[in-house]
Amino acid sequence: MSNRTTLRDVAKATGVSITTVSLVLNNHPTRVSEEKRELIKRKANELNYVPNQTARSLVTKRSMLLALLVPDIENLFFASLAKEIEDECSADGYSLIIANSNDSKNTERQLLQQFEARNIDGLFLIPSSESTKDSTDLRSEVAQMSCPVVLTDRLVREQWCDAAGSDNYQGGQLAARLFVEAGHTHIACISGRHDNGNAEARKAGFVDELGKNHITIDPQLDCYGAYRFDGGYQTADRILDSGATAVFCCNDLMALGFSKRAEERNLSIPEDISLIGYDNVLNSLGIASNLTTIDQDIPQLAKSCHAYMMNRIKQKASKLSPAPWLNDPQTSLLKPKMIIKGSVRTIK
Amino acid sequence: MSNRTTLRDVAKATGVSITTVSLVLNNHPTRVSEEKRELIKRKANELNYVPNQTARSLVTKRSMLLALLVPDIENLFFASLAKEIEDECSADGYSLIIANSNDSKNTERQLLQQFEARNIDGLFLIPSSESTKDSTDLRSEVAQMSCPVVLTDRLVREQWCDAAGSDNYQGGQLAARLFVEAGHTHIACISGRHDNGNAEARKAGFVDELGKNHITIDPQLDCYGAYRFDGGYQTADRILDSGATAVFCCNDLMALGFSKRAEERNLSIPEDISLIGYDNVLNSLGIASNLTTIDQDIPQLAKSCHAYMMNRIKQKASKLSPAPWLNDPQTSLLKPKMIIKGSVRTIK
Repeated sequence: MSNRTTLRDVAKATGVSITTVSLVLNNHPTRVSEEKRELIKRKANELNYVPNQTARSLVTKRSMLLALLVPDIENLFFASLAKEIEDECSADGYSLIIANSNDSKNTERQLLQQFEARNIDGLFLIPSSESTKDSTDLRSEVAQMSCPVVLTDRLVREQWCDAAGSDNYQGGQLAARLFVEAGHTHIACISGRHDNGNAEARKAGFVDELGKNHITIDPQLDCYGAYRFDGGYQTADRILDSGATAVFCCNDLMALGFSKRAEERNLSIPEDISLIGYDNVLNSLGIASNLTTIDQDIPQLAKSCHAYMMNRIKQKASKLSPAPWLNDPQTSLLKPKMIIKGSVRTIK
Repeated sequence: MSNRTTLRDVAKATGVSITTVSLVLNNHPTRVSEEKRELIKRKANELNYVPNQTARSLVTKRSMLLALLVPDIENLFFASLAKEIEDECSADGYSLIIANSNDSKNTERQLLQQFEARNIDGLFLIPSSESTKDSTDLRSEVAQMSCPVVLTDRLVREQWCDAAGSDNYQGGQLAARLFVEAGHTHIACISGRHDNGNAEARKAGFVDELGKNHITIDPQLDCYGAYRFDGGYQTADRILDSGATAVFCCNDLMALGFSKRAEERNLSIPEDISLIGYDNVLNSLGIASNLTTIDQDIPQLAKSCHAYMMNRIKQKASKLSPAPWLNDPQTSLLKPKMIIKGSVRTIK
């Protein structure tokens, strides 16, 4: 660790004023010989001079800091999304603060205040589950932020703020259509959390699409697995005993738990039962490589969120009108994509 | 989104000077009536006034920003470590910038420069694999940083910088001892990356401890699985065909791949072969809940790194001596812990 090189150090080493050094290093016009200019740049380089972003921020009113508030960075889907968003920000010279709300509304509120004090240039906000149930408080907290906010992945349909996410309803429909086309009629569903709009949308899309094809899910086979491996594992027996020929799990982890139990009972997928998961996140670990699943196109989601953010930052800088965007939020619902692997079979 | 409330706004609303507002809100002594003081605080609250951290940073020389440079936030181990470090920082009022080096030395260098420009107060640095092989460049880059750096998880034994990590050599020893105590002599090993000190240490500890007990690993059973699920899966046949009674996988993902292949061949763990993994990260997903594995105590690792950081930040603030710590780095090698589950059996 060394002491930070300042403009003063460069000035001393080159025998000119601090102002001259500043003007030269910022490429502003100043009456100084080409030789001196070269010397100043060379010395600054030798001394490892790095411009002070904090001082610059006070002048430009831009911190070049963005923040991402995530419910839980250990969740595979959010970890992957965080990585893609960080990539996008980094390519534009922004640093990304990442913080965990642990799905708690209180922590979320505190972090929003902390971000506001930091003068971040923008916030990617994945709302906590609590705020997803009732967004009233979050809405007023977001309205008080002085930087642009892009709701990410959750609360996308509410349209009170810029938002981008995957169309979970459509994802559920895709799963239903594949089962219908493969001739299945005796179908089970293991859904995710009760308190989460995205989970409900996946299931609603699935149920509605089956309904269009005059198929209903037996209430006994309408299961709940809390998005956990154990949830899939524990509900498997009921489904396997029922004679259902197909099951839709609202995430890949539950599908993995389900197939673990099926294997233990010496049942095969898809010979004995067809299986569709959701998220396509286990493939990156090499796990569950035979699972048909719904992909949310995380890189594209990160790109959409980032594009909205950059638009708003430019708009704010141009000062054309005061904060017009809350009245006209941009929304992007991305199409999920079916990843066909070997876990669904066609029956007559 | 609203316009940011400034000291000026509060001054206007209360009919006093900006200086008075500043003094009152920062609890500095000033000659102003108790009534006026209350009014200023109330108005500031009503107007949602938040102190400007950027302006404050220029005065205090502290940004209250820390950074974590991570090879890949999608890696389960690093995601978990990042979460724990963020928790520690957040409890102290710091925000944490997280950036991915993608294990590349070039990206790493660029990010170090970006962090330096941002006046971060400290850096948790998990070196890239490239820098792990040869740390010469990284060493001089770190020496040029004007903030404290704590090497995290990697390069801990080199002792040129504060560092905390888990003792991987000891972890390998633990695995060997368990097999020896259970009576195994025909033993296989699937190791991780060739280019990574931690992976090599795990294997070295394992091999050395077996050696003390006069057991050597057949070169045919000395396998390499690149830390990937596929790596464990693909080397499984060779090991299962050899008649080995036990296998140590240098991470849990490879152990999972290995057991997948064993299941496909209708072989059971531990009846047909005993298995030990490393990391204890799959358990949080509910996967591989029967796997005996070595836990690196991630929360404790985060606490150690954070404690070193806070010490250095205090030391720097007290200005007792210029940057003494590079000459006397603190190092912490945490003891790994064996998590005994059902995947190892005792043989006569």
